[in-house]
Amino acid sequence: MKVARFQFEGEISYGILDAAEGTGEVELVELAGDPLLGGYETTGRRLPLARVRLLAPVIPRSKVVAVGKNYADHVAEMRDVTGGRATAEPLLFLKPNTSVIGPGEAIVRPEISDRVEHEGELAVVIGVVAKDVPVERALEVVYGFTCANDVSARDLQVRDGQWARAKGFDTFCPLGPVIETDLDLADARIETRVNGELRQRGSTAQLIHSIPEIVAHASQAFTLLPGDVILTGTPAGVGPLEAGDTVEVEVAGIGILSNPVV
Amino acid sequence: MKVARFQFEGEISYGILDAAEGTGEVELVELAGDPLLGGYETTGRRLPLARVRLLAPVIPRSKVVAVGKNYADHVAEMRDVTGGRATAEPLLFLKPNTSVIGPGEAIVRPEISDRVEHEGELAVVIGVVAKDVPVERALEVVYGFTCANDVSARDLQVRDGQWARAKGFDTFCPLGPVIETDLDLADARIETRVNGELRQRGSTAQLIHSIPEIVAHASQAFTLLPGDVILTGTPAGVGPLEAGDTVEVEVAGIGILSNPVV
Repeated sequence: MKVARFQFEGEISYGILDAAEGTGEVELVELAGDPLLGGYETTGRRLPLARVRLLAPVIPRSKVVAVGKNYADHVAEMRDVTGGRATAEPLLFLKPNTSVIGPGEAIVRPEISDRVEHEGELAVVIGVVAKDVPVERALEVVYGFTCANDVSARDLQVRDGQWARAKGFDTFCPLGPVIETDLDLADARIETRVNGELRQRGSTAQLIHSIPEIVAHASQAFTLLPGDVILTGTPAGVGPLEAGDTVEVEVAGIGILSNPVV
Repeated sequence: MKVARFQFEGEISYGILDAAEGTGEVELVELAGDPLLGGYETTGRRLPLARVRLLAPVIPRSKVVAVGKNYADHVAEMRDVTGGRATAEPLLFLKPNTSVIGPGEAIVRPEISDRVEHEGELAVVIGVVAKDVPVERALEVVYGFTCANDVSARDLQVRDGQWARAKGFDTFCPLGPVIETDLDLADARIETRVNGELRQRGSTAQLIHSIPEIVAHASQAFTLLPGDVILTGTPAGVGPLEAGDTVEVEVAGIGILSNPVV
């Protein structure tokens, strides 16, 4: 099931993607509330997907947890920035909820950075309050999955050492286009394209720390709240974003998250 | 003016501290809503401070921004952990809002850390939505000040390199006891005591980066929201917290934030 948050005629609603009878056109079955908190009561209205504006499918009330160094090829390419070694445990950092934007919204390059880069990732959306979840039960606290771009000011990341600022600027956490509640995690393909050109290609099969391991590990430190988001790391191929670019993150089975850069 | 958030007979309210006529006993003038969002309408009720339970005076909807390495004597004592140099700009990191607790609530030492330490600090509470605030206007976006303890799992801080986990555990951000809206920032004394014994003593006069500089710098990266909190760094003297300890952070003019450790 694909869940969207959207704006239509000024109002913000949630909906489930569905094929229209007959035409097969994609429609949104509008929900009465946020499915993460209130379930799946519908309003009875169906809206063509093409007529609504999709928003970030979730705005975390608490946090975006992110994992560094989780693909071997990316660990290798970042040797000069983060040291060339993977960590025994998932390496966690935080992005603030004020960095979240939705599909189509612009990534704004801050004036104080000379090098802003894309990092296409698979994101996990937490569904329930969770603390100290064992690995084997970790997927039970997950609501679904979406695409994310862990946008990073690489020069400031190096200068600060701590990554909170370099990865926490407003607009530096595009999420979307929808949340897929049933994703096969064995080998989900992740691609990042800039102006149509392939820059990053990876698969969840290559993750150093698996999704359940990441969720369990994060829940050992932090109480996870419904709507909290965990970014699971980026494969090799990170590179610069310039004003005028359009960057796309695609996770097979979810969709394409596309954002212009200004 | 001192603003408190408190629980009385099961209900959570806000109030302003005031001396009772005649007795001089401290009372709370109860407010109809959160003064950060809704102003100062009163309910007409006055409650003796001694009869309520004080809570964290604010729960950030977005983030706790914290500053590392902001007292020269602390930078020196942390040489082995963070390198012995202060940074040209305030070094920012994030603590999640799930780490916030109030006065009297227990700091829980996580099993996976062998060394949990106190860091007494002055905390800034943001009052309005703020982005790219110039230094000379930075105090205009501040609602007030409170005491904070930037509790840190020192062993995990060293192991991870990134500080998000080591400083982000549940209960690792005690705040309180109240917000003082009018604090003289020139030379506010900050003391941390463990079981009554003085461990840290500093003053805002010793800050490497001033409060306005920190607020302006944070607002350059993140949109600050009403209720966001900025911790301004800790003076020398950080040290371990063991189960059974009571740790107090006192900022002159605000009050004493006291928390047991379990």
